[in-house]
Amino acid sequence: MVKAVKYERNDTDAKVILLDQRALPSRVIFVKCLGAQDTATAIKEMVVRGAPAIGIAAAYALAAEAWHELQRGSSALELLSHLTRAGEVLIRARPTAVNLAWAVKRVLQSALTCPEGSSAKDVAYRMEREAKAIDEEDLRMNRAMADFGAKLLPDQGGVLTHCNAGALATGGYGTALGVIRRAYEIGKRFKVYADETRPLMQGARLTAWELMQDGIPVVLITDSSAAYLMQLGRIQCAIVGADRIAANGDVANKIGTYAIAVSCRAHGIPFYVAAPSSTVDLNTSSGREIVVEERSATEITTFGDVRIAPEGIEVFNPAFDITPARYVTAIITDKGIVGPPFDHGLRQILGMHDTVDAEE
Amino acid sequence: MVKAVKYERNDTDAKVILLDQRALPSRVIFVKCLGAQDTATAIKEMVVRGAPAIGIAAAYALAAEAWHELQRGSSALELLSHLTRAGEVLIRARPTAVNLAWAVKRVLQSALTCPEGSSAKDVAYRMEREAKAIDEEDLRMNRAMADFGAKLLPDQGGVLTHCNAGALATGGYGTALGVIRRAYEIGKRFKVYADETRPLMQGARLTAWELMQDGIPVVLITDSSAAYLMQLGRIQCAIVGADRIAANGDVANKIGTYAIAVSCRAHGIPFYVAAPSSTVDLNTSSGREIVVEERSATEITTFGDVRIAPEGIEVFNPAFDITPARYVTAIITDKGIVGPPFDHGLRQILGMHDTVDAEE
Repeated sequence: MVKAVKYERNDTDAKVILLDQRALPSRVIFVKCLGAQDTATAIKEMVVRGAPAIGIAAAYALAAEAWHELQRGSSALELLSHLTRAGEVLIRARPTAVNLAWAVKRVLQSALTCPEGSSAKDVAYRMEREAKAIDEEDLRMNRAMADFGAKLLPDQGGVLTHCNAGALATGGYGTALGVIRRAYEIGKRFKVYADETRPLMQGARLTAWELMQDGIPVVLITDSSAAYLMQLGRIQCAIVGADRIAANGDVANKIGTYAIAVSCRAHGIPFYVAAPSSTVDLNTSSGREIVVEERSATEITTFGDVRIAPEGIEVFNPAFDITPARYVTAIITDKGIVGPPFDHGLRQILGMHDTVDAEE
Repeated sequence: MVKAVKYERNDTDAKVILLDQRALPSRVIFVKCLGAQDTATAIKEMVVRGAPAIGIAAAYALAAEAWHELQRGSSALELLSHLTRAGEVLIRARPTAVNLAWAVKRVLQSALTCPEGSSAKDVAYRMEREAKAIDEEDLRMNRAMADFGAKLLPDQGGVLTHCNAGALATGGYGTALGVIRRAYEIGKRFKVYADETRPLMQGARLTAWELMQDGIPVVLITDSSAAYLMQLGRIQCAIVGADRIAANGDVANKIGTYAIAVSCRAHGIPFYVAAPSSTVDLNTSSGREIVVEERSATEITTFGDVRIAPEGIEVFNPAFDITPARYVTAIITDKGIVGPPFDHGLRQILGMHDTVDAEE
């Protein structure tokens, strides 16, 4: 199985190894990061992308950072102080993805569970275990989510997805693509329509590549064709991932997600969001509170070295958009499927930490 | 003023000169076409694009073709027979654009108005005059359309457009962009949001370039951002061109137009279509009858020489989509503004050939 983020530590070195997603599908290249600074840069430059994968990369970056501090002979307290600053560097890399801050905080807090008087080594290893746990849990959550969600997908016809919510975006298997994978494993035979996802083409480069590797039929379309395919009756549902889900069920996800949700509503087509429960941020009451990151104009005005828009053109390039909860048919999580009213359902799966009725 | 299609004839040569729109905005290159075959190729390869400009190019191609026949010493009958075949070659170049067939038929039929016993020269020159008339009328129609439409645009805020319905797509001034130009001339001060328009980037390459040349503020966005901009309240109306308008008001236009119309409806934003009355095809009763051209997969899978999707990926690449009349707020034509019910209004402006009440 393709693994976007790996961690390697031996006697002489600790590092985060990222599959460079900017080079896919043409080339399979790995980028090695030794600590928080270069991992933050890699996150910012989208070597690694996808909310869960970013969180895992950040967690491993802290583990590597801790190991390097240990080699420098830092005390437990020095190590913790250094890592707190390193965590801030990581969190600033992409403001919208909630998993990033979540993973950083979780690794840092794991240190606090060490008994009083623990050595720097104890603390560093505790953090490394926590980072690994985040990675493994993510894969487990994706499998659970996929089991819940697979039954919602049609037996045939078309399933639309946007961006890449796949193995490449997570600890493995994928969120939206995990649900699609599982549906295929249990014998459903729809076609996947993959939005190319401008400007960075994650659909064309990553989703198409992932699904072709698994032999799942996939048709590549431009983002603006999706509504027309719905009009033609060729899309039976849409399923996307999420970068952050507010307490009321509003969803921040890759720019273009909202346009799909609007078109789904106009055509009476279900619009599903698949995301681990760690994506739900109860501290964010609604989408209005989510700061949507604006990215560089050159993502739109150039392609590689080729200029495709006039010099000096003004550009609006939000990385995400907000899909209000009223457009969401259901949120598929590792703890079960949540339908409207989302505020109740989301609180239930997060607060009680048990499985809600998947039929609800 | 930028001119996408020009015709030049002197004692030794007749040719159609096309501004190569594939090279914009980086390079301003002209392609010379001597007759129907190379003009058809240029149309197919989108050296020239935009329904009115394609029609004008085809009309001039016939004029050049007639002139060359004349040099070969053809009789009036031979010339007409040759040009009928040349017309078929041109019409096949792009099946969806109604102006293409319309312009070809109009030039051919003009020959029939020549008195019995006219010479080949008379016929050839008659056709040339007709081609020039089509070009000049298009510019006049665009100015008329712009006068009617300008009052519909907001005084400030944002106006969304898709693809390029500008001077580059017409005999000059533009349809949707003509309306925008006129609104600017009468002092309105909105911003234009230009969809980049995948896959061929007419918005980024052409609309942005045209508007910047005129000093009209333009913001470039990805196609999938438009809905989000509407949610943010930054779009007050959308205005697009049309490749064909059916008798019931259904509109065939660049892929992605329908998605915009759906989003406009969801946000209560007016969706305007600006097109010369020659775009209305009363022989097409509804959009269902329009054959939507599918274009090459490589338009989506590659960018220049760079591959952006896996080898062997299936692609769906319709050139156009159909926006049902119920999504259209008004159709702005050179004969006036037509509102729903469109079947009545469109028949009125076409059948009566006089100006309908622009307030209607």
